[in-house]
Amino acid sequence: MGTIHRVLIVGGTHGNELTGVYAVRHYQALPELVRRSSFETVTILGNPGAIAAGRRYIDQDLNRSFDPQNQVDPSSYEVQRAEALRAQFGPSGATPVDVVLDLHSTTANAGVMVILDQVDSFTLALATHLSRRHPDIRFYSSQGSGRGQDSLRSLAPHRLGIEVGPIAHGTLQADLFQKTAAILQTTLDYLDSHNQGTAAADLPTDLTIYHYSGSLDYPRDADGHPLAMIHPHRQGQDYAPLAPGDPLFLTFSGMVIPYAGRAITYPVFINEAAYYEKGIALCLTQKEQLSINA
Amino acid sequence: MGTIHRVLIVGGTHGNELTGVYAVRHYQALPELVRRSSFETVTILGNPGAIAAGRRYIDQDLNRSFDPQNQVDPSSYEVQRAEALRAQFGPSGATPVDVVLDLHSTTANAGVMVILDQVDSFTLALATHLSRRHPDIRFYSSQGSGRGQDSLRSLAPHRLGIEVGPIAHGTLQADLFQKTAAILQTTLDYLDSHNQGTAAADLPTDLTIYHYSGSLDYPRDADGHPLAMIHPHRQGQDYAPLAPGDPLFLTFSGMVIPYAGRAITYPVFINEAAYYEKGIALCLTQKEQLSINA
Repeated sequence: MGTIHRVLIVGGTHGNELTGVYAVRHYQALPELVRRSSFETVTILGNPGAIAAGRRYIDQDLNRSFDPQNQVDPSSYEVQRAEALRAQFGPSGATPVDVVLDLHSTTANAGVMVILDQVDSFTLALATHLSRRHPDIRFYSSQGSGRGQDSLRSLAPHRLGIEVGPIAHGTLQADLFQKTAAILQTTLDYLDSHNQGTAAADLPTDLTIYHYSGSLDYPRDADGHPLAMIHPHRQGQDYAPLAPGDPLFLTFSGMVIPYAGRAITYPVFINEAAYYEKGIALCLTQKEQLSINA
Repeated sequence: MGTIHRVLIVGGTHGNELTGVYAVRHYQALPELVRRSSFETVTILGNPGAIAAGRRYIDQDLNRSFDPQNQVDPSSYEVQRAEALRAQFGPSGATPVDVVLDLHSTTANAGVMVILDQVDSFTLALATHLSRRHPDIRFYSSQGSGRGQDSLRSLAPHRLGIEVGPIAHGTLQADLFQKTAAILQTTLDYLDSHNQGTAAADLPTDLTIYHYSGSLDYPRDADGHPLAMIHPHRQGQDYAPLAPGDPLFLTFSGMVIPYAGRAITYPVFINEAAYYEKGIALCLTQKEQLSINA
């Protein structure tokens, strides 16, 4: 990773995730908060139409709209927005960006999750640095989920997602806003020190990464309506081990449906509102413990 | 209150409040669960268009659309839906209903709230009965809020709202689903025993009612965007006393804005997602302790 010239901070890639929307508005009112001497910082609202409408998206999920395969309808608001953002910030755009920092929130009990779309040495060094300053961060590798190709973040060679929860879409929560802002500040400082050649050489650190490995849907009826809910013992238990036979769903009549997988997994995004329509009740992960020698 | 002939159970008056939507679908699949010998039970989805769209409403809030004053646009989906429901279930409708039980959920920490639109002797006796069977219920009187005139419930001479939270709109949560179902069952049993003349004569009981007395908005900028969030000490503290000078909001820069009222109040619906656009950060209540001699 060479010199970072331009960093893009995006909020409101999903229009009803207000933490990022209001963080970006805050930084646009007080740009000195995100200004650093060694690179240019750009702040944008990802999906202004959806933000105005108070919804995740207008026609389709913007964070799935950057892959040509998902650009079936060129008149889609989000396809047009994706291409406008690519023309501005993409590798061949008017003002290409080296790093995207993308602010999200979730109804799942994510706590403070940092999403890594790739696990390369630069990203791992940054993650290690963040982990030491913010021990409550959980690191989620989205490799294999498609986000490396279809997300807004895919515009840049390097990127982080910051995902906080649980929080209802369409709301703000002060503690999660402040955690997002704190991680963003640490990240900007780190990128600046990288450019200055003074990035702190952190001590060797164990870093735990939850690697996306698939997802499970709710049981559904012929109309596609869920036939069951997340089991109360599993609700809010993101990152906790789920073993074969553990209660996973509860039907509306009170019948328990156990996890039918063959191995332990560590679910995340349990009961995310936006995933009902995507056929995802929870994402499965494999937990990896890395020893980093910085 | 004479004999009850017909009871209407409504879910999805707000299309993204899935607890009620799935409760009604459950009862439509298993109607024996809500059938009682002394009255007819009807179950409906309040706002099918909004449910299909996964939103609170299509054109305007259905639960504000029953007052002619709010029917400005007769082509509004919800105005048409309100009039169709009135023609079916209203006092002069094809099949008038005596009682409406209306199922809601909120992003606020309501716990299990039963909403009373009027505080008459029949409603108080029912509330007392519910309170003894479900001690965790909080009773909220919406008198003065407008719901007596503009809500779907206003179709019937008697009605209850069942409101559970905190839950993100667009999601289900098993514990809150089961609490809603349990209170509904107790209510149907009570209405049946009322008709049979065997309504249990409950012992004298203290009943606490939180009476709506107004609301407070977020501080906002010229564009109408909130300038602050609910203070972390107040987030989730529904029903707890708020005294003059207590921290109420926190700006994005971290400045505390205290409560500027002159007397103690007991806020509810703190940080309800749907109320951002209504200019409501929290509803204020006066707490009343009643001694009921049943």
